[in-house]
Amino acid sequence: MELTHFNTSGRAKMVDVGDKKDTERYAKACGYIEMKRETLKAITDGKVKKGDVLAVAQVAGIMAAKKTSEIIPMCHNISLTGCDIDFEIDFTSCRIYIISTVRTFGKTGVEMEALTAVSAAGLTIYDMCKAIEKDMIIGDIKLLEKKGGKSGEFIRG
Amino acid sequence: MELTHFNTSGRAKMVDVGDKKDTERYAKACGYIEMKRETLKAITDGKVKKGDVLAVAQVAGIMAAKKTSEIIPMCHNISLTGCDIDFEIDFTSCRIYIISTVRTFGKTGVEMEALTAVSAAGLTIYDMCKAIEKDMIIGDIKLLEKKGGKSGEFIRG
Amino acid sequence: MELTHFNTSGRAKMVDVGDKKDTERYAKACGYIEMKRETLKAITDGKVKKGDVLAVAQVAGIMAAKKTSEIIPMCHNISLTGCDIDFEIDFTSCRIYIISTVRTFGKTGVEMEALTAVSAAGLTIYDMCKAIEKDMIIGDIKLLEKKGGKSGEFIRG
Amino acid sequence: MELTHFNTSGRAKMVDVGDKKDTERYAKACGYIEMKRETLKAITDGKVKKGDVLAVAQVAGIMAAKKTSEIIPMCHNISLTGCDIDFEIDFTSCRIYIISTVRTFGKTGVEMEALTAVSAAGLTIYDMCKAIEKDMIIGDIKLLEKKGGKSGEFIRG
Amino acid sequence: MELTHFNTSGRAKMVDVGDKKDTERYAKACGYIEMKRETLKAITDGKVKKGDVLAVAQVAGIMAAKKTSEIIPMCHNISLTGCDIDFEIDFTSCRIYIISTVRTFGKTGVEMEALTAVSAAGLTIYDMCKAIEKDMIIGDIKLLEKKGGKSGEFIRG
Amino acid sequence: MELTHFNTSGRAKMVDVGDKKDTERYAKACGYIEMKRETLKAITDGKVKKGDVLAVAQVAGIMAAKKTSEIIPMCHNISLTGCDIDFEIDFTSCRIYIISTVRTFGKTGVEMEALTAVSAAGLTIYDMCKAIEKDMIIGDIKLLEKKGGKSGEFIRG
Repeated sequence: MELTHFNTSGRAKMVDVGDKKDTERYAKACGYIEMKRETLKAITDGKVKKGDVLAVAQVAGIMAAKKTSEIIPMCHNISLTGCDIDFEIDFTSCRIYIISTVRTFGKTGVEMEALTAVSAAGLTIYDMCKAIEKDMIIGDIKLLEKKGGKSGEFIRG
Repeated sequence: MELTHFNTSGRAKMVDVGDKKDTERYAKACGYIEMKRETLKAITDGKVKKGDVLAVAQVAGIMAAKKTSEIIPMCHNISLTGCDIDFEIDFTSCRIYIISTVRTFGKTGVEMEALTAVSAAGLTIYDMCKAIEKDMIIGDIKLLEKKGGKSGEFIRG
Repeated sequence: MELTHFNTSGRAKMVDVGDKKDTERYAKACGYIEMKRETLKAITDGKVKKGDVLAVAQVAGIMAAKKTSEIIPMCHNISLTGCDIDFEIDFTSCRIYIISTVRTFGKTGVEMEALTAVSAAGLTIYDMCKAIEKDMIIGDIKLLEKKGGKSGEFIRG
Repeated sequence: MELTHFNTSGRAKMVDVGDKKDTERYAKACGYIEMKRETLKAITDGKVKKGDVLAVAQVAGIMAAKKTSEIIPMCHNISLTGCDIDFEIDFTSCRIYIISTVRTFGKTGVEMEALTAVSAAGLTIYDMCKAIEKDMIIGDIKLLEKKGGKSGEFIRG
Repeated sequence: MELTHFNTSGRAKMVDVGDKKDTERYAKACGYIEMKRETLKAITDGKVKKGDVLAVAQVAGIMAAKKTSEIIPMCHNISLTGCDIDFEIDFTSCRIYIISTVRTFGKTGVEMEALTAVSAAGLTIYDMCKAIEKDMIIGDIKLLEKKGGKSGEFIRG
Repeated sequence: MELTHFNTSGRAKMVDVGDKKDTERYAKACGYIEMKRETLKAITDGKVKKGDVLAVAQVAGIMAAKKTSEIIPMCHNISLTGCDIDFEIDFTSCRIYIISTVRTFGKTGVEMEALTAVSAAGLTIYDMCKAIEKDMIIGDIKLLEKKGGKSGEFIRG
């Protein structure tokens, strides 16, 4: 197996995708942030009366998806046609699951955009709750699904 | 416990740190990216002859640390005095551990900068290897240590 | 009437425009900045001998148009094909009118880019004259015209 | 009266503030966005059940405040110590008033940051409601108050 | 000969390229950074045992290419399909030659992206070696080749 | 001589300047862009009647100085207290000389900011004249002077 992001001198390059076809591209990624029960309660209570942490994380994730090529050096700068984020709160494991979906029409996939959206949303939740807990953990950031392009469909087993 | 990032209308604000003292601030965070043995081998081989994935991830992490306040909405924009990243490769678990350290002298801590550096480095490794594996997982992103400021020292238990 | 920028959880999303057709898009927006007669005179005199405030505002407006999707969270990041700004000085009302035109070929309109260009140009004029007047007012920022896309032509009544 | 942002060749410069004293700086700015009654109703209803336009505008305004020196060419890039935005809904005039406050400790004032926050929040409200109304107007963006620095206190008459 | 980037008021505009055809675009640019023999030796030694300056410069150049429209005011913001940088070390002249190639498919050429990549790579080499030499010179930044678009092929004579 | 920007693993780091003293920092850099006589004439004529290329380059250089730490990976992100650019037109050599001065008060020098300002101004001149000449060359970008900090004063010999 060969890494594709390097030139003949062994240095990183932004791979040329000029020959790839424009197709509809879709990626779905997820991850979670785990915290203490009290922290999770502060977030869910906040939604109702004091302030909505997840609304801020949502905006952060979507803005980060658009910024992906500025964060990840060899990522192509592309126009996204859509981006959404969902949160699922699991009171048993004290986790907030973050699920992102990103779409574009173009020559490159949007896996990195979906993963970046999840990361940024998770980091934002951490930031907004860090005054009450510093032990939170962001984990299990992974690609769930990918459509479009030559390599075709990927669905996580 | 109360969330501090909200105003009286229940909307997010960038907390005023004007009254905080300028002190030396330090934060250390970590996380890992887990992959198949072949993928890890491609990375470690690459260092020797084809291309150094981790050199790119290093740059990505440091640049992201500087960009943290653009990625995390309520984060203060601050000048960092130093940032470094280390990688530890564990062939048993097939993981690359990413450890970041960030320093500043100022009114706010740099936990978010350290966590953002880890995330961006992990995402960059994913990006540069995704042509050979899409199943990689970025996990266990957490704060290890924090010094400076009113809340004092934090060392992960 | 329904807001379109929210998902089923009631959280903001970047609306999917993947199904929209690529068409030529055009938007024209305007606004003004009102100031004291002496301030306006300093600007118009400056053009001749000391320094051209509007040349800087022009650059600011055009650069902001390109940056729109970084400023407005749910705005799609798109490539613009053209952008121009005109200033009209009205000595009677002591206003500088700012008129922007933006063009692209794509799936989304460029209203926000045109409005953002006007705002940034106005703010820049404020910045460059604030040493001599702090009472300036930026006002009446609005869309004048819009062409292209499913919703068709809009001309302000 | 002389414009201060120009060098002896009559070209724009970023004024040297190196000799100014570090003091606490504060600025408060406001503006409004005016719309049809139905649009305003969609926003206020949305808060309750469908989606909170103002939560997104709040985040946009705060992030734009931090980005001010990238939008306004001769503005100094500075670290803000705090930023908040408030919205006041006036059903009679069908306006949402946007009030921003920005603080820092440093050599330059934060008027431009406060004004930029108001503009970005207003533009974001426009963006999120433009599918139901294109006639909205953003107006009366002005500085209300300013503290700190050599020029001292400014309170709008 | 007429400058094309100005409107009828004599102010800069981003030229409208809406009528241009989408074609494959390619540009190749180069430049060099000249230094003392010891500095060059530190770089070439570093590659082997201490740290790879050129790996960082490579990343900087590619990221800057993507950022071109934020650095050069009247440049269109476009998606690049590929970008690569090569370094050639000339021990006789004590120069590192930097050669960039950039590709896209669209309405505008990528000369500025190629030139910006060279500049950023050169500046990065300067930055990383400035502790040992401040006399380095970046020179001879120029376009070598350009393909695609109405103006056709350009090969430096 | 040792490169300072690398950690013990031989990877790039942002050097810790936390122990450095805050002092006044100043840097002056220069460079030129060389072109055909007709191109230079178009620029100097433009100033008078059609459009001022150098006004745009001035803004570009100053904005790039503020953006330096986003362009140069290991550069500290710092607040500048002042930045100016001067142009000297030499009709004999058909060159426009670009001279930048940058100031700050802090722990790191501003050489890179001064050099980046020169580069960005040069690239902008190229961009705005490339429709009439593609053979322009940007050259001799170098540090002229530097004050402040432990390494003290540097004046180019």
